[in-house]
Amino acid sequence: DPKLKIFALNSNKPLAQRIADEVGVSLGETSVDRFSDGEIRINIEESIRGCHVFVIQSTSAPVNDNLMELLIMVDALRRASAATINVVIPYYGYARQDRKARSREPITAKLVANMLEKAGISRVVALDLHAAQIQGFFDVPVDHLMGAPLLADYFINHGIDENAVVVSPDHGGVSRARALAEFLKAPIAIIDKRRPRANVAEIMNIIGDVKGKRAIMIDDMIDTAGTITLGAQALKDAGATDVYASATHPVLSGPAIERIQNSPIKQLVVTDSIQLPKEKQIDKIKQISVGPLIGDAIIRIHENRPVSPLFNNRFR
Amino acid sequence: DPKLKIFALNSNKPLAQRIADEVGVSLGETSVDRFSDGEIRINIEESIRGCHVFVIQSTSAPVNDNLMELLIMVDALRRASAATINVVIPYYGYARQDRKARSREPITAKLVANMLEKAGISRVVALDLHAAQIQGFFDVPVDHLMGAPLLADYFINHGIDENAVVVSPDHGGVSRARALAEFLKAPIAIIDKRRPRANVAEIMNIIGDVKGKRAIMIDDMIDTAGTITLGAQALKDAGATDVYASATHPVLSGPAIERIQNSPIKQLVVTDSIQLPKEKQIDKIKQISVGPLIGDAIIRIHENRPVSPLFNNRFR
Ligand SMILES: Nc1ncnc2c1ncn2[C@@H]1O[C@H](COP(=O)(O)O)[C@@H](O)[C@H]1O
Ligand SMILES: Nc1ncnc2c1ncn2[C@@H]1O[C@H](COP(=O)(O)O)[C@@H](O)[C@H]1O
Repeated sequence: DPKLKIFALNSNKPLAQRIADEVGVSLGETSVDRFSDGEIRINIEESIRGCHVFVIQSTSAPVNDNLMELLIMVDALRRASAATINVVIPYYGYARQDRKARSREPITAKLVANMLEKAGISRVVALDLHAAQIQGFFDVPVDHLMGAPLLADYFINHGIDENAVVVSPDHGGVSRARALAEFLKAPIAIIDKRRPRANVAEIMNIIGDVKGKRAIMIDDMIDTAGTITLGAQALKDAGATDVYASATHPVLSGPAIERIQNSPIKQLVVTDSIQLPKEKQIDKIKQISVGPLIGDAIIRIHENRPVSPLFNNRFR
Repeated sequence: DPKLKIFALNSNKPLAQRIADEVGVSLGETSVDRFSDGEIRINIEESIRGCHVFVIQSTSAPVNDNLMELLIMVDALRRASAATINVVIPYYGYARQDRKARSREPITAKLVANMLEKAGISRVVALDLHAAQIQGFFDVPVDHLMGAPLLADYFINHGIDENAVVVSPDHGGVSRARALAEFLKAPIAIIDKRRPRANVAEIMNIIGDVKGKRAIMIDDMIDTAGTITLGAQALKDAGATDVYASATHPVLSGPAIERIQNSPIKQLVVTDSIQLPKEKQIDKIKQISVGPLIGDAIIRIHENRPVSPLFNNRFR
């Protein structure tokens, strides 16, 4: 029976440790650092010949460094005769560049998929890809996990689901809101942004009933937090009693933290798909670990059992 | 007749401009910058449909960012229907990771070649690859240019070749020293480093005659400058009248500048394959442009004429 081994790269070691704990193995021995000129130096410090290897790496910022670490690691594993190379990418960078929105744009999400396959991966484990179509960018199997049940669990365990309405912060995210609303047995609402004319501020139009209710916004990722903080104000103005926000991926770049601090958002609930530096770990942000979810998926993959996107028993 | 277009990415715009000047075209319009979260945003601002496109990018530090810029640009060009995509890589990063020196190491130089081919390149123009074998990592044509004739030209034009001996700073670089020595019509010498026992300082043994001569060391790249500065001292100790150093690629990482300043090296002659930040442009370092060499190669490629590695008429 070939052995299961888990290796962590540098993007999110605490999550990798939680995953290894869940699976009941210790992390593989490897050194991943830099030469004097900044080139990545990887050496795998234990034999992996004939093993089923899982590599944990989010391609979050610094995205190019984290992606190259992953590609070089896959190259080293392949040349060291791993039986299978399974890459676990809790946050898949470049996912928003998934189509040509204008002429002569790249489709970087597909480029990344091609690079990983060329490097030699056998499988991808991903979590809430920005577009589910990115699964089709790969020819190897993709197990696509869902963060919503974990977020729903949190809201239910803290009684936040009471008298709640789940709100999609834009018209593109309605299905995601619908999924969370089913878990919470709550109705949905949609924020419909319209710009009446060019160079005029957008108008936030709320479709659905939020007055006197607790609003819970959901998105796949929160980047600069512009949409979610403007949405929170619009929900307050429309009579919501309090406003929560949730998302799987806390990208939180640029002005995000300041905007969240200054917004009427009571709490932002996210996962640890991206490791947050100390200065971004503010009181308003609650991180829930996807370690158990991913660990369970790895065990199921290794045992050839089906991987259900609905991890929690509550929703099975 | 399909049109020739040249695009510059961000690693070395001054060199790209010199190349375009040599070819007699202006650089293509493109924007290559960053999204808020650090992901690369590329948009090509002019039609390149049916064109022969040359992209100039050294994969010098920050190597992963520069490499990803190049890969994403190639993806965008391919999707925008370029007739051919020719990548000019004056400095090829990760070239030293070109074989498994120890177990379970990656061969990143090959990974990079695979990535570029998968992205869709038609051809590579390279300059003094760390190992000529890297040409074989590609299945597309590689035009491999040589910096030594330019360096030789400089030494001859400044009378530095008089009473000179060309020195290889280690036993791996003898062929390179031999080539420069032929251009300069000078003899060669070799520095043979040996460590008598573990944890004992290396002994610099000079093979060949340097006493009373001007020593010119040559290497393909100078990174931390340890080898070349220790070599310079050993040459002085062996009676060389003065010591010059030369290399195609000025990597110059970590302690390199300080070591060069404090060494007996009179002048270090390099090319502009890597753009040096202001603080590394010290008096002792002379940069010679490879713009004319590369520009000439691009014209020849576009006209289907042979590309000679011996650019200068002096040596043809
Ligand atoms: N890292 C990024 N940050 C912000 N916008 C991006 C990023 N990557 C791609 N985009 C843009 O986001 C748009 C796609 O976003 P969406 O409509 O939410 O799928 C495209 O127009 C992309 O140009
Ligand atoms: N960026 C780098 N800086 C320093 N050493 C490197 C770098 N990349 C690879 N190497 C090592 O350099 C050795 C090859 O150098 P060489 O013998 O000069 O071809 C290998 O053992 C590599 O592990």
